[in-house]
Amino acid sequence: MNPDITRERENATFDVEKLTHILDGDIEKTKRRREIESLVISDPDFQSEDLNFLSRSERYDAAVKKSAHMILKLREYGISDPEEIYCYKSVFRRHHHEALGLHFVMFLPTLYTQCNEQQLKKWVPLAESFKALGTYAQTELGHGTHLRGLETTATYDPATQEFVMNSPTITSIKWWPGGLGKTSNHAIVLAQLHTQGKCHGLQAFIVPLRSMNTHIPLPGVVVGDIGPKFGFDEVDNGYLKLENVRIPRDHMLMKYAKVEADGTYVKPPSAKLTYGTMVFIRSMIVGEAGRALAKSCTIAIRYSSVRHQSEIRPGEPEPQIMDYQTQQYKLFPLLATAYAYKFVGQYMNQVYHRITGDISQGDFSELPELHALSAGLKAFTTWTASAGIEVCRMACGGHGYSRCSALPDIYVNFVPTCTYEGENTVMMLQTARFLIKSYRQASAGHQLSGIVSYLNESERRLQPQSVSSRPTVVNVNDLASLVDAYKLRAAKLVEMAAKSIQQELQKRVSQEDAWNNSAIDLVRASDAHCHYVVVKLFAAKLGEIGDTGVHSVLSTLALLYALQGIQQHSGDFLQTGLLSVPQLSQVSQRLKDLLAQLRPNAVALVDAFDYRDEMLNSVLGRYDGNVYEHMFEWARRSPLNKTEVHESYHKYLKPLQAKL
Amino acid sequence: MNPDITRERENATFDVEKLTHILDGDIEKTKRRREIESLVISDPDFQSEDLNFLSRSERYDAAVKKSAHMILKLREYGISDPEEIYCYKSVFRRHHHEALGLHFVMFLPTLYTQCNEQQLKKWVPLAESFKALGTYAQTELGHGTHLRGLETTATYDPATQEFVMNSPTITSIKWWPGGLGKTSNHAIVLAQLHTQGKCHGLQAFIVPLRSMNTHIPLPGVVVGDIGPKFGFDEVDNGYLKLENVRIPRDHMLMKYAKVEADGTYVKPPSAKLTYGTMVFIRSMIVGEAGRALAKSCTIAIRYSSVRHQSEIRPGEPEPQIMDYQTQQYKLFPLLATAYAYKFVGQYMNQVYHRITGDISQGDFSELPELHALSAGLKAFTTWTASAGIEVCRMACGGHGYSRCSALPDIYVNFVPTCTYEGENTVMMLQTARFLIKSYRQASAGHQLSGIVSYLNESERRLQPQSVSSRPTVVNVNDLASLVDAYKLRAAKLVEMAAKSIQQELQKRVSQEDAWNNSAIDLVRASDAHCHYVVVKLFAAKLGEIGDTGVHSVLSTLALLYALQGIQQHSGDFLQTGLLSVPQLSQVSQRLKDLLAQLRPNAVALVDAFDYRDEMLNSVLGRYDGNVYEHMFEWARRSPLNKTEVHESYHKYLKPLQAKL
Repeated sequence: MNPDITRERENATFDVEKLTHILDGDIEKTKRRREIESLVISDPDFQSEDLNFLSRSERYDAAVKKSAHMILKLREYGISDPEEIYCYKSVFRRHHHEALGLHFVMFLPTLYTQCNEQQLKKWVPLAESFKALGTYAQTELGHGTHLRGLETTATYDPATQEFVMNSPTITSIKWWPGGLGKTSNHAIVLAQLHTQGKCHGLQAFIVPLRSMNTHIPLPGVVVGDIGPKFGFDEVDNGYLKLENVRIPRDHMLMKYAKVEADGTYVKPPSAKLTYGTMVFIRSMIVGEAGRALAKSCTIAIRYSSVRHQSEIRPGEPEPQIMDYQTQQYKLFPLLATAYAYKFVGQYMNQVYHRITGDISQGDFSELPELHALSAGLKAFTTWTASAGIEVCRMACGGHGYSRCSALPDIYVNFVPTCTYEGENTVMMLQTARFLIKSYRQASAGHQLSGIVSYLNESERRLQPQSVSSRPTVVNVNDLASLVDAYKLRAAKLVEMAAKSIQQELQKRVSQEDAWNNSAIDLVRASDAHCHYVVVKLFAAKLGEIGDTGVHSVLSTLALLYALQGIQQHSGDFLQTGLLSVPQLSQVSQRLKDLLAQLRPNAVALVDAFDYRDEMLNSVLGRYDGNVYEHMFEWARRSPLNKTEVHESYHKYLKPLQAKL
Repeated sequence: MNPDITRERENATFDVEKLTHILDGDIEKTKRRREIESLVISDPDFQSEDLNFLSRSERYDAAVKKSAHMILKLREYGISDPEEIYCYKSVFRRHHHEALGLHFVMFLPTLYTQCNEQQLKKWVPLAESFKALGTYAQTELGHGTHLRGLETTATYDPATQEFVMNSPTITSIKWWPGGLGKTSNHAIVLAQLHTQGKCHGLQAFIVPLRSMNTHIPLPGVVVGDIGPKFGFDEVDNGYLKLENVRIPRDHMLMKYAKVEADGTYVKPPSAKLTYGTMVFIRSMIVGEAGRALAKSCTIAIRYSSVRHQSEIRPGEPEPQIMDYQTQQYKLFPLLATAYAYKFVGQYMNQVYHRITGDISQGDFSELPELHALSAGLKAFTTWTASAGIEVCRMACGGHGYSRCSALPDIYVNFVPTCTYEGENTVMMLQTARFLIKSYRQASAGHQLSGIVSYLNESERRLQPQSVSSRPTVVNVNDLASLVDAYKLRAAKLVEMAAKSIQQELQKRVSQEDAWNNSAIDLVRASDAHCHYVVVKLFAAKLGEIGDTGVHSVLSTLALLYALQGIQQHSGDFLQTGLLSVPQLSQVSQRLKDLLAQLRPNAVALVDAFDYRDEMLNSVLGRYDGNVYEHMFEWARRSPLNKTEVHESYHKYLKPLQAKL
């Protein structure tokens, strides 16, 4: 054990294990999580060479191997609880992705929810036995977020009772679905349904892609890998071009909409139920943002405690880099953010389960709010976490660029969350739509409830109106007071966005153009709303914590989180008259004090995340702090070191020397 | 040609070619650049498969091949002007790096400047004929920025008149030098000189690493590749462990310091001259920041003009995504930034050459200012450009993640500039040291000249002191007025940082601790200083431009750049009383107007950067806008598509199906 990191742990003022239980939920959950982790870590079939040393084809191969092994093991151990499966997967995946991911996340759930009785009987056994290996093909080369723009066609032919599937244009080629390129032999394809000369919009169809015996693509199916990406090297995101592929009528998923034998289209009774899945996945992503940032902070903070560099006081030994105020200012607010997002993830998970219960009892009332919240928070947390991972990486100096730090892998495999499951700016604008709608309702005299109740007239009247009438209500040392400041800022920015739309409308532009011409303000308002929610939830979490030591350190973190946000957005707080200039100076000073106060607990706070070395897979983030010898050992395994002399020497350098 | 992009070009209000000449310097320089580019592009020996499809070993191989070919070609064409060589290289390198880069940038220049007469005669011919392939080994596993911390030793043995070179600890292993792993057979090694029982600090030594005949490592030399990184895949950054390696006495570079045959150490007369190289490389990096951002903007803006998505007005066709205000707000300020940095790069290049002239005549007076400026601007521009590349990438939606967009390559190969040649935070603090020193001189009554003259007492007295006495001098429509506002902000933040140090000193902490406890404020002050310099130089550039159309569009860009900076740092401008709240609203409104005003010129403005498709290597950034067909074509070449059925199917999936 590196003596620096031992000393850090000795200086901690709280019980790390207790904080771990809070992060897991309770002591039992911690225990069970550790059991599952040990199952994977001790399993020799999950061991492999560092993926960074492999070619893409080898990485894909390794991922398929692990997925296949996992399926057998989960059955052997009888693990079937979704959260336990998620835990199991996250250990062997490390920072990477699973080859059969979409089979589990999209193919099977879509079958469960959109097949009719007969279809369930046929497809579920095939999919659960992995004879049908499936994916979900929605996005096209030229079409993403806007589903109505999709061009793939399914034209019903009553003569043969088949659908004829086509990709009529280059832009209609299906593009991006995970596992589509090489792994899947089936896909659920979203296509425009044409029957009896009319288009009835998007429907889902099961399209066989490859022979279930030989895995060779079927006639008319042009399928393959879309090529290397920024991350996701082990996933065969694919393309699919359909050329007059005929599928039987009962391959259209018919739980809701139907096409009868003669081609008559039967409308679905309602189309509200897919809403929930989206909300669920976005809630999961918020939790992922917390985890990705927690891993990155673990690596950067442990490394900062063992790395010595430069000098603060001349003549003295090089200090730990964590002693530099600038390093603390980079890392500690991100550590606070990681905690905040973990708690927000817990909250969203709870709300989702509660609301799902309500929905199954026919109560949809909270869904629009949750939908808006999950969209905005997904964008808010993934943007911040992505940028934060890079800050952590760069805080490790040169060694942060080495793949042995794991930080490049964490970044490239997390940052796509900013785009998938709803592009972030689009998400922010969805939340803004809910906020503006709520604002207008409140302005029209309706009493709002829930998280947007701050938009009620009565609340808004309490707000300061200008700098001159500043009431100086904010106490920068009091978290509750800061939560209020965030709330008032959100209210003010929603109001400003609404007024911008109003002003545009007065220029006689259309409602839609007024919206687009105010989009910058709308995104800003959503951002402020999400920030308020995060600060509020962090503060609320403190109320649940009994242990004094843990409560104290988390309170410091929460205060740091709130104050740093204010400093970063000081313009908003000054502009809306919520803070005065002298208060802003207080904020700066208080921030510095909090950094110094957190310094002795930094390593313990990342230890509490409880990532085992086998999961972090980072030489810089090792628990024992013995970084350098393991970097050297790792480097020696680099494929370029397999031979002492690389062949390029004989091919190019020696001939060059001869010619000159 | 895609009709959308043709229409964009038709709508431009200025002569693109004229702007290209301004960016190059003049019409002759544009012509010569294009000639050189054509030489490379038409050369079949520079063609290769997309590097993204190759393994790391293949990429390294391809890079060595190109470097060897380049050396022959440059001789054949008689190209020897450094700027022309730089131009030639940048075409075949694309976004990647050169295998023999450090031989040219560090090995040769160090020989030229630090060899004595005899050494020059021996080593320069060997290096210029590439019989000696060299690199520069400074950084160690445990030591970076702080040179005094380096541990490698060179101990003089008068008995044999040799130096014994050693890596006494794990942390002393040389780590990171480019070309060290496999390519080089020599390295200039920085080591602590020990002779006659005393340590005389760092000296440079030429250490043979590999046999010049067989390329096999010499006895005692443990050398290899440090493994995969975030980018730089084609470069063999290496490690070097020296185990009692003996080199002759005349392998110490002896132009300045010397060790005589008996071991007597002779001090160097002065040690100021290496300063210049550092300044030069940092100036180059500022230019690189402009180029990396210009390339990224070219890709994202062209793609935004051909990509259609979602709807602004219901029922109408999907609009070009560049019509969304949020998309304009992401991209146009970055476009303005790219122009700003290109002009700053030009300026620094000119200043460097002018000052180099002065220095050769013994006038060092401007060097400290230039040193401080180059440090800060290197940090300021590389941070912004790195973040900006990622914004461009994400503005391309899902397709920005594909390696065919080139944006991932641009990012990973540019972002290391934030760390190498001086870690950015350290650079900002170096600039701050100069600013604080200047501030103290001014406070002591000295009259400052040059870029920091705004710190003079007389200037500072003109500043507004508080919000209440706000003079509302800033005209948000007038660039000169905005330059002034940036200047006053910088002055105020330097003053605040100086006062923070003062306050710390009053707490009876040491000078050094006071500095560290104020580091956040110091970085902020440097940042404001650099921002002021960039705005000022952009404004100054406008004065050189005669063409009305070009002047008009560049003025819009400059105004956008200045106003967006104010919006992003509105807290500073409000806090220092430079702007009022109503003015800030004006800024927001004006920004939106400028976005709309730039919209018709956006494509033409990136066309003016004049990157040929062969250099951009981006399917999304194609000049003809025909994106989708070429994405499909690119994807089909993906290595995973070499076989229809990947071997993993037979190895894992078929057996899995059999078992279930």
